[in-house]
Amino acid sequence: MKIVEEKVLSYLDSKRDEIIDFLGKLVRIPSVVGEELEAQKFMYNVFRDMGLEVEMWEPDVDVLRRHPAFFETTSFKKYGYRNRPNVIGRFRGEGGGNSLFLCGHIDVVSPEPINAWSYPPWSGIVVDGKMYGRGAADQKGGIASMTYALKSILDLGIKLKGNVLIGTTIEEEDGGIGGALAVVLKGYRADAAILTEPGGSRIGVASAGVLYFRVKVMGRTAHASRAHLGVNAIEKACTVYRALMELNRERQKRIRYEYAENEAPHMKGRATTINVGVIKGGDWPSTVAGWTELECRIGWPPGESISDVKREVETTIMEASKEDSWLRDHPPKIEWFGWSAEPSEQDVNHPIVKLVKGTAEEVLGERVVFAGGSAGLDTRHFILYGGIPAITFGPEGENTHGIDEYVNLDSVIKTSKVLALTLLRWCGVT
Amino acid sequence: MKIVEEKVLSYLDSKRDEIIDFLGKLVRIPSVVGEELEAQKFMYNVFRDMGLEVEMWEPDVDVLRRHPAFFETTSFKKYGYRNRPNVIGRFRGEGGGNSLFLCGHIDVVSPEPINAWSYPPWSGIVVDGKMYGRGAADQKGGIASMTYALKSILDLGIKLKGNVLIGTTIEEEDGGIGGALAVVLKGYRADAAILTEPGGSRIGVASAGVLYFRVKVMGRTAHASRAHLGVNAIEKACTVYRALMELNRERQKRIRYEYAENEAPHMKGRATTINVGVIKGGDWPSTVAGWTELECRIGWPPGESISDVKREVETTIMEASKEDSWLRDHPPKIEWFGWSAEPSEQDVNHPIVKLVKGTAEEVLGERVVFAGGSAGLDTRHFILYGGIPAITFGPEGENTHGIDEYVNLDSVIKTSKVLALTLLRWCGVT
Repeated sequence: MKIVEEKVLSYLDSKRDEIIDFLGKLVRIPSVVGEELEAQKFMYNVFRDMGLEVEMWEPDVDVLRRHPAFFETTSFKKYGYRNRPNVIGRFRGEGGGNSLFLCGHIDVVSPEPINAWSYPPWSGIVVDGKMYGRGAADQKGGIASMTYALKSILDLGIKLKGNVLIGTTIEEEDGGIGGALAVVLKGYRADAAILTEPGGSRIGVASAGVLYFRVKVMGRTAHASRAHLGVNAIEKACTVYRALMELNRERQKRIRYEYAENEAPHMKGRATTINVGVIKGGDWPSTVAGWTELECRIGWPPGESISDVKREVETTIMEASKEDSWLRDHPPKIEWFGWSAEPSEQDVNHPIVKLVKGTAEEVLGERVVFAGGSAGLDTRHFILYGGIPAITFGPEGENTHGIDEYVNLDSVIKTSKVLALTLLRWCGVT
Repeated sequence: MKIVEEKVLSYLDSKRDEIIDFLGKLVRIPSVVGEELEAQKFMYNVFRDMGLEVEMWEPDVDVLRRHPAFFETTSFKKYGYRNRPNVIGRFRGEGGGNSLFLCGHIDVVSPEPINAWSYPPWSGIVVDGKMYGRGAADQKGGIASMTYALKSILDLGIKLKGNVLIGTTIEEEDGGIGGALAVVLKGYRADAAILTEPGGSRIGVASAGVLYFRVKVMGRTAHASRAHLGVNAIEKACTVYRALMELNRERQKRIRYEYAENEAPHMKGRATTINVGVIKGGDWPSTVAGWTELECRIGWPPGESISDVKREVETTIMEASKEDSWLRDHPPKIEWFGWSAEPSEQDVNHPIVKLVKGTAEEVLGERVVFAGGSAGLDTRHFILYGGIPAITFGPEGENTHGIDEYVNLDSVIKTSKVLALTLLRWCGVT
């Protein structure tokens, strides 16, 4: 290891308390998707105080709408894009090096039910080397790591050759349309991007395809005392449910994907999933349910396109309907709504992947594996629509999206070290 | 037939246009359950103009709550009982005769979806001898018949021996707690009651037991990409649905009831029914549904008590849960809510039943049958809680609670004749 690298690592060790303090402040600014403004103002000031050129701008939905990956996100429908800026800091290198984009999403999912938490979700309390709070792991820990990776280099006066972009974006949890996609469409480019999603000793090299769909099943109403004259749409929805679960089992056998199965031992054979998350039907206990709707998500690893998957789901529901005398004549309607993400995969032979893997193994002292492909991530916007090689790498945490989310603070520091070394090695030093 | 009877019948024939005009006015006053005030003011004036002593009063919920048959009706929860009066007119006879209570409910169910109607539901338009409109059959037609039955006798100066009560009550469609039950608890009594629900050539002699219940099924949430770590409450609700339908089939084989099966040819073997009318579950397409609720109605003919039926439903759900490894440890919760009606049956050998049957067959010129027991009616309040023998008899109509409800106008006049003759024969004439 070079002397400059060792200086950066020991500088980061010396800044441990400051980094934890920074992360605590960020966790204590609630930034549930749609309400990202205060946290983004905070990040704007942080990047500005680091001496970066900083741009803070709201997404232009008219530009986004023209892009094939556009969909109206839930938070866009609720809030629009006013007061929901992205923040991008720019460091101009000395020239002659590779450029790198460090990026994290500022939005977090709802902490509800808050009463179920052991510690208040906006407290950022530290217990046994873990910081608890909504977003601590997903992914304000990663934002702290990347911010201090660059800051340590700047503080020490080390001159990078390549340019660096460092940004925090909105609504990743909703699909990143107004966040990462807007960033890419605004023209920000680099030779590679690292998104600091939580991962620990896993490098994320794939993003899942994701679709939401709604199945509307019609029945025929009748008074409950004459239920035999009606057709209960709840019963018919159970038929559709079974058909979707049968497809799920068949797909899980057929579609295997190493990186998704690497995510955890229990992910074996679970690279693709169909989930029926919401059901609503009928109007009154004494009326035969005349309608029922199912809201579903299908996720799948790279290998199938959105249109492949839509066709398979539609065919399955139509085939199941043919076997039911009522559904045959009253086929369910399928609506694709909300999340609509093509899967993407980063070639693991790309130099940035090899560099991060080697650097991470060096710092963490353990084997680092490639993972990903069960969840939709912002990496797809960089890869598919920006032509920017992109991976995820970030600190280790647990209970993301759940109760008592926490990030391991040692891991935050180690991640910062990996990212700092990556900056030095990728961008080069004069 | 006596001369006085013939006079009344021909008087009613001469009043046909006036009766139809009266019914049209009443249909044109919307009186969806909960919003009965304007129609009740109209009836108050009608009864007053007939020279009756009229009382118009709002139900006292504190009195009602102390009664074992009380439950909070849907419209009570929404509106309370302010501005929802019952109207009772009293005619004092000369003495020495039987007393009769003629009663109809003024409330109607919602006409939605209004756009589906061939004629506006509050128009009371007459086409081919039928008056169309929400409530035309259920049961403003019956109110017109009973009003003119008494009015014709009074107009002709005929002196009845027995007392007559004539009333219009609220919220029968919601269970009649603030209507018929409140009337009975206020102390109105007669030797018999005729409720003018639609029926044509059927005399209603039974009211169904009715219970609403909610089954809450818990699952375990998980992100959709890790659905295998969760337990989908929608799937478990389908299991409960199947168990309830299995119980329904078994009960329909076991429980036969002639009067309910008399209601229509298709009612054979359908005297009892279980309906799952509403389903709601889960929060988000990408989260495994952590909960699902079913809202159900069970109706049954006289023969079982409320507690018998509750026990059978609860046992069925618990037995089905034992066969499921998740439900065994997380048994569904069952809540009994809303409608809670004991079944009741009127002895068909009672003189009022024989009298109405004979009179109806005489006027209609066809065989009149006994029916009832698939729907909960206000008769139960009179029989069970007032000790008043009670039946339903009213004009013939179709599409009650549905689109294009209508009443047959010939039948309105004939019903008025049957009721007028019944008054003369039951109360006696000086």
